[in-house]
Amino acid sequence: MGKKLTSRSDDYSKWYNELVVKADLAENSGVRGCMVIKPYGFAIWEKMQAQLDKMFKETGHENAYFPLFIPKSYLSKEASHVEGFAKECAVVTHYRLKNAEDGSGIVVDEDAKLEEELIVRPTSETIIWDTYRRWIQSYRDLPLLINQWANVVRWEMRTRLFLRTAEFLWQEGHTAHATRQEAIEEAEQMMHIYAEFAEEHMAVPVIKGTKTESERFAGAIETYCIEALMQDGKALQAGTSHFLGQNFAKAFDVKFANKEGKQEYVWATSWGVSTRLMGALVMTHSDDNGLVLPPKLAPIQVVIIPIYKGLEQLEAISKKVEPLVKELRSKGISVKFDKRDTHKPGFKFNEYELKGVPVRLAIGQRDLENDTYEVARRDTLQKESVKSEEIINKIESLMDEIQENIYKKAFDYRKHHISKVDSYDEFKRIIEEKGGFVSAHWDGTITTEDKIKEETKATIRCIPLDVEKEEGKCMVTGKPSTQRVLFAKAY
Amino acid sequence: MGKKLTSRSDDYSKWYNELVVKADLAENSGVRGCMVIKPYGFAIWEKMQAQLDKMFKETGHENAYFPLFIPKSYLSKEASHVEGFAKECAVVTHYRLKNAEDGSGIVVDEDAKLEEELIVRPTSETIIWDTYRRWIQSYRDLPLLINQWANVVRWEMRTRLFLRTAEFLWQEGHTAHATRQEAIEEAEQMMHIYAEFAEEHMAVPVIKGTKTESERFAGAIETYCIEALMQDGKALQAGTSHFLGQNFAKAFDVKFANKEGKQEYVWATSWGVSTRLMGALVMTHSDDNGLVLPPKLAPIQVVIIPIYKGLEQLEAISKKVEPLVKELRSKGISVKFDKRDTHKPGFKFNEYELKGVPVRLAIGQRDLENDTYEVARRDTLQKESVKSEEIINKIESLMDEIQENIYKKAFDYRKHHISKVDSYDEFKRIIEEKGGFVSAHWDGTITTEDKIKEETKATIRCIPLDVEKEEGKCMVTGKPSTQRVLFAKAY
Repeated sequence: MGKKLTSRSDDYSKWYNELVVKADLAENSGVRGCMVIKPYGFAIWEKMQAQLDKMFKETGHENAYFPLFIPKSYLSKEASHVEGFAKECAVVTHYRLKNAEDGSGIVVDEDAKLEEELIVRPTSETIIWDTYRRWIQSYRDLPLLINQWANVVRWEMRTRLFLRTAEFLWQEGHTAHATRQEAIEEAEQMMHIYAEFAEEHMAVPVIKGTKTESERFAGAIETYCIEALMQDGKALQAGTSHFLGQNFAKAFDVKFANKEGKQEYVWATSWGVSTRLMGALVMTHSDDNGLVLPPKLAPIQVVIIPIYKGLEQLEAISKKVEPLVKELRSKGISVKFDKRDTHKPGFKFNEYELKGVPVRLAIGQRDLENDTYEVARRDTLQKESVKSEEIINKIESLMDEIQENIYKKAFDYRKHHISKVDSYDEFKRIIEEKGGFVSAHWDGTITTEDKIKEETKATIRCIPLDVEKEEGKCMVTGKPSTQRVLFAKAY
Repeated sequence: MGKKLTSRSDDYSKWYNELVVKADLAENSGVRGCMVIKPYGFAIWEKMQAQLDKMFKETGHENAYFPLFIPKSYLSKEASHVEGFAKECAVVTHYRLKNAEDGSGIVVDEDAKLEEELIVRPTSETIIWDTYRRWIQSYRDLPLLINQWANVVRWEMRTRLFLRTAEFLWQEGHTAHATRQEAIEEAEQMMHIYAEFAEEHMAVPVIKGTKTESERFAGAIETYCIEALMQDGKALQAGTSHFLGQNFAKAFDVKFANKEGKQEYVWATSWGVSTRLMGALVMTHSDDNGLVLPPKLAPIQVVIIPIYKGLEQLEAISKKVEPLVKELRSKGISVKFDKRDTHKPGFKFNEYELKGVPVRLAIGQRDLENDTYEVARRDTLQKESVKSEEIINKIESLMDEIQENIYKKAFDYRKHHISKVDSYDEFKRIIEEKGGFVSAHWDGTITTEDKIKEETKATIRCIPLDVEKEEGKCMVTGKPSTQRVLFAKAY
């Protein structure tokens, strides 16, 4: 395990970086900005994927796969889209290496230059809408509801594990509709699905809203988002869903014959969540001892650690534990019985605490005599002795309790970190000293938004959906405003 | 549906290409050599993935994720490896686009040239062994059993959907072991798992064996493979598993302290199957009417088509069919009840035949009166009338029967296409006229292997594992040989 984690209060950012590595979630690779997702981290991502995939399929979406590469000319077809992504594209220019003639090693073979450079996809709207032109002819072909699980690349200068990496994994939904209204409903539906996933599975409370023009996806008419709050008071955008209007249909000439036989451009949405969710998960719940995982996403939900002297005691313990392991598994609970004799119980306790295993059972000689287990929950660090006959019920109810408790804790934290302010001075003070979301009036202009960002580093995270209209004045310019928006410093 | 498929006897290659597109499995994209995997094709691939993933996990492997990009210098570290892949690498040289100064559009920004070029992974041994150096210190860290599901790129000049594409999807296992013996056993185990998957799930019989030196993976000591036979008499390599010795451990300096505390190099394997399996699946079973899918991998196992005049009849049919759909689904059978009123029954019959749905039920007025369904199986095209009370049992047994029958059919085809020959003239005749595998003696030299390949286009597909030793003479040189090997023309 090595030495203790840096504490959150000492250095939140360092705590996060250390935790991600020490808990075996991910690490930096030899390739600038690209991470290796380690088996334990990947197991969490797989659980996220499985749940999201289920929710997508239940709402009628199918998976497909589109090329990694995008011809440069495709990217250029939608003007604001290319502007948004051109500066962070990995560009493939050649397709062969050869031995250097001067014997200095392997070099790019200049004779093997591509006729047209290829971009490693930063997102797939362009290649997908180029395909949809062939797939869509009639209203009968609509809606087209497709999702893709893929890797994408955005060349970032400053990277952090999960939160901002040059390559990341994500899903991107791309749907095509006959009407504007249906596309808007789809974009909204996906925002709600993301929110449901974040809250019910990740136990991360989120605020739903729309982005301001300057924070919108490059090529979108409207960007819906879910915003979460981390323990350092900074916001994190956890998922976005875009209403793309007819922008991509026009750029790629995708039309359909409506019921009257008239040609119309198709309406589009796209929506995605990425391995960034792993960062949100870690930063929302974890503490100075390590990860705290929601039972619904924990690769190991229960760990059982025997405390024994000699093989005979271990055998007696195993005899009792193995039927329990079997029964828990039959109930769909993932259990690990860690009998390794290469490590002491104390070491194991620390290891599973660091890795955020929700429930730990320990069993030693006295437990054998009393027919009990020592049950410890990771979220509260509370311990109690539980009779063997009650252990299954106890574990089952702990799964629910822990899931609820960490959600509630995160919800309470956020509740205490949404500040309503009416003056720019107070705004600056709160952003600086307390952090969290600040709810304030804004005049709706990019100029004011930019000024606030420049002066405070806070951005408008969203125009919340479930907020009452309220007449007010912009805290900066005093101009009229009809609704408060949410500001925060953000990841 | 458009016009009929080209028949296999007319043009096998054209038949395949048409079928893959018409059955909605995949199509070419606007990016040279890269395919789009369409939802129906991807649903089959997802079923393959799910089963393989289960088999990998049951044998102790965990999933992880490694970077898409490989620094050029990594690739060069293992000499035969770089030689094998350098000529087909997509090379990333820049990370930004910009507007051309002459207004001609978007161009690569030459100021944003990478210090070291990056290769889009053609396979991940190098980046993974660079990582394993950090993960492995002691024998306690071994074995390390890791798999990755990923996309890879090999710049091929001539591509065909699924069989040979510039980008493809695959899984690559990369394991590390303390001993030579354990690594060999792992490589062999994975070959057996691939064979089990091919035979029991894809219903594709395969021959297990090892590759000759010239057909080995670049960097391997031994390559194990499974070889299938397509209906045109050409072989297809369906999966490979490599014993890599200590080659990559030495290239990346990966050592471990053994139990005695002595530093040793780690032993390695790698193994993979790809979306190429989709090509094998299509070519093994399908016929001139379209796909034939094994029930275990069919996205839709049963389709039910109502034959009706007017809404009243449809309602009566639906009332009968809907409980059946529910019951079949509760048994884990995937059913589609196609009530679309935009297409006639005949059109639907053709569509599902083309898409290889194993069982089709039709139900019309007379069936309602007789309390029957018309049941058609895709593999034999046989139809029969089945009483409603027997329909569930009938469908369940058909799932097994069809799975077995198409395996048997493929097995019989192969049995009749393994020819034992002792003279080179006969060899040439059979390779030319009959195709299939030819079992012959070979002197073990690359020279002879190359000569045969040049003169007949046949290669040694494998040195079969389950074949008896037999003294003989090389059919070409007359030199002694101890075992027959299998030749074929191959995909």
